[in-house]
Amino acid sequence: MKKSLSSATREKLLALAANRIAIEAVAPQVDGGRFAVKRVVGEPLMVSADIFGDGHEVIGAALLVCPPGSSVWQEVPMRFVANDRWEAELDCNSEGLWHYTIIGWRDAFGTWLHDTRKKKQAGLNITLELEEARILLDRALKSGRGTRDDARALKDLLKQYGKLLKSGDAGEQFSVLDSFNTQALLEETGPRDELTVSHELPLWVDRKRAAFSAWYELMPRSQSGDVNRHGTFDDVIARLPDVQEMGFDVLYMPPIHPIGKAHRKGRNNALTATADDPGSPYAIGSDEGGHDAIHPELGSFDDFARLIAAARQHGMDVALDFAIQCSPDHPWIRQHPEWFDWRPDGTIKYAENPPKKYQDIVNVDFYREGALPSLWIELRDVVLFWLEKGVRIFRVDNPHTKPFPFWEWLIAEVRQVDPGVIFLAEAFTRPKLMKRLAKVGFNQSYSYFTWRDEKWELEAYLTELTQEECVDYMRPNFFVNTPDINPFYLQTSGRPGFRIRLALAATLAGNYGIYSGFELCEYEPVPGREEYLNSEKYEIRAFDWFQAGNIRPDIRFFNELRQTHESSWDFPNLKFYHFGNDNILYYGRMAPDKSSMLLFMVLLDPHAAQGGQYELPLWEFGLADDAMLNATNLVTGQKLQLQGKQQHWWINPDECPYVVLNVFA
Amino acid sequence: MKKSLSSATREKLLALAANRIAIEAVAPQVDGGRFAVKRVVGEPLMVSADIFGDGHEVIGAALLVCPPGSSVWQEVPMRFVANDRWEAELDCNSEGLWHYTIIGWRDAFGTWLHDTRKKKQAGLNITLELEEARILLDRALKSGRGTRDDARALKDLLKQYGKLLKSGDAGEQFSVLDSFNTQALLEETGPRDELTVSHELPLWVDRKRAAFSAWYELMPRSQSGDVNRHGTFDDVIARLPDVQEMGFDVLYMPPIHPIGKAHRKGRNNALTATADDPGSPYAIGSDEGGHDAIHPELGSFDDFARLIAAARQHGMDVALDFAIQCSPDHPWIRQHPEWFDWRPDGTIKYAENPPKKYQDIVNVDFYREGALPSLWIELRDVVLFWLEKGVRIFRVDNPHTKPFPFWEWLIAEVRQVDPGVIFLAEAFTRPKLMKRLAKVGFNQSYSYFTWRDEKWELEAYLTELTQEECVDYMRPNFFVNTPDINPFYLQTSGRPGFRIRLALAATLAGNYGIYSGFELCEYEPVPGREEYLNSEKYEIRAFDWFQAGNIRPDIRFFNELRQTHESSWDFPNLKFYHFGNDNILYYGRMAPDKSSMLLFMVLLDPHAAQGGQYELPLWEFGLADDAMLNATNLVTGQKLQLQGKQQHWWINPDECPYVVLNVFA
Repeated sequence: MKKSLSSATREKLLALAANRIAIEAVAPQVDGGRFAVKRVVGEPLMVSADIFGDGHEVIGAALLVCPPGSSVWQEVPMRFVANDRWEAELDCNSEGLWHYTIIGWRDAFGTWLHDTRKKKQAGLNITLELEEARILLDRALKSGRGTRDDARALKDLLKQYGKLLKSGDAGEQFSVLDSFNTQALLEETGPRDELTVSHELPLWVDRKRAAFSAWYELMPRSQSGDVNRHGTFDDVIARLPDVQEMGFDVLYMPPIHPIGKAHRKGRNNALTATADDPGSPYAIGSDEGGHDAIHPELGSFDDFARLIAAARQHGMDVALDFAIQCSPDHPWIRQHPEWFDWRPDGTIKYAENPPKKYQDIVNVDFYREGALPSLWIELRDVVLFWLEKGVRIFRVDNPHTKPFPFWEWLIAEVRQVDPGVIFLAEAFTRPKLMKRLAKVGFNQSYSYFTWRDEKWELEAYLTELTQEECVDYMRPNFFVNTPDINPFYLQTSGRPGFRIRLALAATLAGNYGIYSGFELCEYEPVPGREEYLNSEKYEIRAFDWFQAGNIRPDIRFFNELRQTHESSWDFPNLKFYHFGNDNILYYGRMAPDKSSMLLFMVLLDPHAAQGGQYELPLWEFGLADDAMLNATNLVTGQKLQLQGKQQHWWINPDECPYVVLNVFA
Repeated sequence: MKKSLSSATREKLLALAANRIAIEAVAPQVDGGRFAVKRVVGEPLMVSADIFGDGHEVIGAALLVCPPGSSVWQEVPMRFVANDRWEAELDCNSEGLWHYTIIGWRDAFGTWLHDTRKKKQAGLNITLELEEARILLDRALKSGRGTRDDARALKDLLKQYGKLLKSGDAGEQFSVLDSFNTQALLEETGPRDELTVSHELPLWVDRKRAAFSAWYELMPRSQSGDVNRHGTFDDVIARLPDVQEMGFDVLYMPPIHPIGKAHRKGRNNALTATADDPGSPYAIGSDEGGHDAIHPELGSFDDFARLIAAARQHGMDVALDFAIQCSPDHPWIRQHPEWFDWRPDGTIKYAENPPKKYQDIVNVDFYREGALPSLWIELRDVVLFWLEKGVRIFRVDNPHTKPFPFWEWLIAEVRQVDPGVIFLAEAFTRPKLMKRLAKVGFNQSYSYFTWRDEKWELEAYLTELTQEECVDYMRPNFFVNTPDINPFYLQTSGRPGFRIRLALAATLAGNYGIYSGFELCEYEPVPGREEYLNSEKYEIRAFDWFQAGNIRPDIRFFNELRQTHESSWDFPNLKFYHFGNDNILYYGRMAPDKSSMLLFMVLLDPHAAQGGQYELPLWEFGLADDAMLNATNLVTGQKLQLQGKQQHWWINPDECPYVVLNVFA
């Protein structure tokens, strides 16, 4: 028989005992708190958990919140929902790293009140209970909780109650305690027995643009309007009114650094370049400098500063590319040979995807003895360098081929300088890698949208993105095209297809983007491939940005719609509804105040008119199947009255391949 | 511009960098490893996880396993499944607390082989690659991994390969490396770059009876066959052949301790007892002793020891009740007033459920200053006391009204003495509390089965129990009745209903039990309540255990079926199939070797014959819809040949309300 405890056993016992209240299944959380949940400023975070104690005691629970840079925890009371689930809402009112946790306790006064009410209703003598209440009030006074005013009120209550106890009227005594005021006072001051604290969880709050943005991508060197003149930052500045008029708020430029000469690629990705080929901007670095230099033909740092300032005046962020690969001429190769891999014959290891070898590109090796951590610091400092120049958005090239811990570290470091910096992960790879990049800190992620054309796959993909656990940390950015992706769909869809893909991207996701040329319905491919012929990646192009057949009015329409309708700002509010035709995608977004919703019908077939029966989601407004909703067709301005759940619509791609209704009760 | 790192930043960087490989979504795990996953000896544990690195390197992964009492981690190679998911099976071959974790690494030799094969196939010159391979072999030799024999083999390989490199035949050089032997050797010895270790997870391995047992509950004092003679342990011993013949392996007795006299309850729960009323065995403790004493009329400790020994000879565990409440006469109240709650007038606080008060019962207060930890130690020692007497199974009364940390601590302490002790939680309460008790260590749990009569609710409940996350830690014990629960269903079902509930309990769950009287179809209720009239809880009863109409043959049948068919041992292998009649529950269990399965059709309506069309699950054997299966009707012994997916059956409750088929291809 054991009758004593070793001190280790005793400690274990007391540590366990300290957690009497069960706090389970706290949501949201990412990988048990290993990574942060993400929200933007102004977006609420609803925190819920299973909270319960043993036995039948009344319990209380609160959400504790520690805002960025603070060491003070604020308390938000939690409310009971059902089935031992509790919830509370956190108001994300500033950018940065928050922490939250949950506390639960046994509420002695609440339990007393609950039990004594029942006894009183059953007509039992509650004299002893009333005496026990006095002890509870004493404990509250000693607990030290609440304000000085609370303490004063509690003292007054005790005095009053003490007098009443002498008078002997149990009904009167009880009613002093069973009052709104006393309950409120005891909530502030009552002892919290067996207070249990859950584990801390991180929350990252971004500026709004991290979750809601419209990107316009352009190659600055193609902005002169003349294929024989290299475009400059001033040419880009000249285009800002145009980009602003279309309604974009992020202007994104591929790398602006000096371009390598060794093994330079020629037009259409030719292995050898002619003397006047400008090379790919992704072959970064030459004797003119590396990642912290500007390609001289684009302009100077002063010119760049003017571009940043002008963009800001036009309501735009400038986003730069952060592409870590180097051309063989990059200064780092001479200055830091310890960052690169070398072969037994003394040559540098080129990038490769066996059997292909890319001789215009070399990659750094993040885990070489000489590179960890000096290379990491240098790369962080490259980002900080451009941040200092006013760049607060970085589109990161192929982040999935660089170590996840590197990104986690770099992004955290940059955020210490400016929590508003946004990183977009350009990773087209396996789903779990894309999600991991979002977990380690990327604010936005490229997506599979470009390859999702059919109704079932769009519904499945968007349901995953908006309903599964990734919604708490991954924010897709739906690009309709990129310099690397000229989708097969657009190669044969004609102008209606461009309008369709624009409508989908702009209304299905919070973040979306186009690569310039899209608005002109540019589609000429390298035959049989999803690549552009005469790609700007390898040559200077010139465009007439206002040429006939452009879809600028559609772009303006959707960007304005997004800005003016609050229901567009909430990515997960997306819901698909029934339209009895597989060629029409039908979905809606309810306004935060539930008074109205946007309904979208997008024709997926760019070649033929389609129609059919659809369900008007009357139930979302709590209405019966035969009720009526008012609607405005936002495309035509027409006012409608829609009666009953079953409705019909017909869409002609040559008129307008999409319908947007604003419906309200 | 920052160009240096503080030492804190540097440490953070290096700590992050140490986890280059992502290891996510490790399954199974309970609350992120806070609680142990459960298995029994001989049952495999399949561990899976998402494991991936950045880039395109070949990676490797292994499951590390630390058996009970060992400090040596054993390695089990993981195999790639799909979509970055890997898995490995752990062989649970001994009782106790195991730990497991996962490691992942970059496989330099695997990557080299993968890339070089492609280059060779493309006809490229691989001279440099072959030289790089020599460096890899050198690194393997220096890694120190593998056995002494491996090192010798590696040295031989290096020597051979070095000679070959001089000969200059690239094909011959490569084929030495691209061989089964070299790959196997490098798996054992190759360097594991950027090895990443996941977090440790606990696994509790029980003896088989924790997951697979048939309980028979009896009141020892009612075993004399004479209401005027208090039954003894010897009377219980005399019943063992009978209980064994029915096929039970756990004999469970409600509390055997001295019964309190103060406020003793009379027959049928009367508030006052007559002089010869024996009282409720749950009013534990009198001047004859408390939780470590035996009610004198049952016998002595020597008699008890003989019972334990006899039960063991009959293949049975004796399970005792662990009910922590005390009668007002319990010795602890005098010896340890600091363990109880006292009211302002100096009286002890009785158990209550306001407005009801139970004056025959007082509860201890686990968190009183004087009780923590002395009370906890005393209660642990009560369990250890009975363990020393040979009791290895405890049915715990109302554990959900005692603190969860107390159970977590007590169960862990008892397991340090004997990992084979089994605790059954008698908690009928809210779902999350029941699951929490299973998480903190209870090996078995009472369930809602008693109140699940209809097809849809049985299917829904069993699907939750076998398919949701609780399957990894909660093992239901399906009692058909208890001294406290005389189900409404059985009060009107007649004998067929008893056979039906037996069939369901014995075949739906791994653990099940009956409270004696069930085999005699006893059902007389307190009118309008789910309680037994003239309950044994308050009086001595006598039964003819072989009276006409008993269902002993059914019980024998099911207990033998459970023992002889391995498919019964695996709780989660349960699958429901389609029977076109809501009054027939139809389900199956596949044998581990997939060669045969048991199919069960249980009539839920005890009053009328029912039948209909059902689907023969040919697909489970990989067969077409028109294929044939052989079957044996295990109830009748009849051999059948069943052709085609659509079949019919008709069940008459007055003949036999269940069908059990053993089907095989």
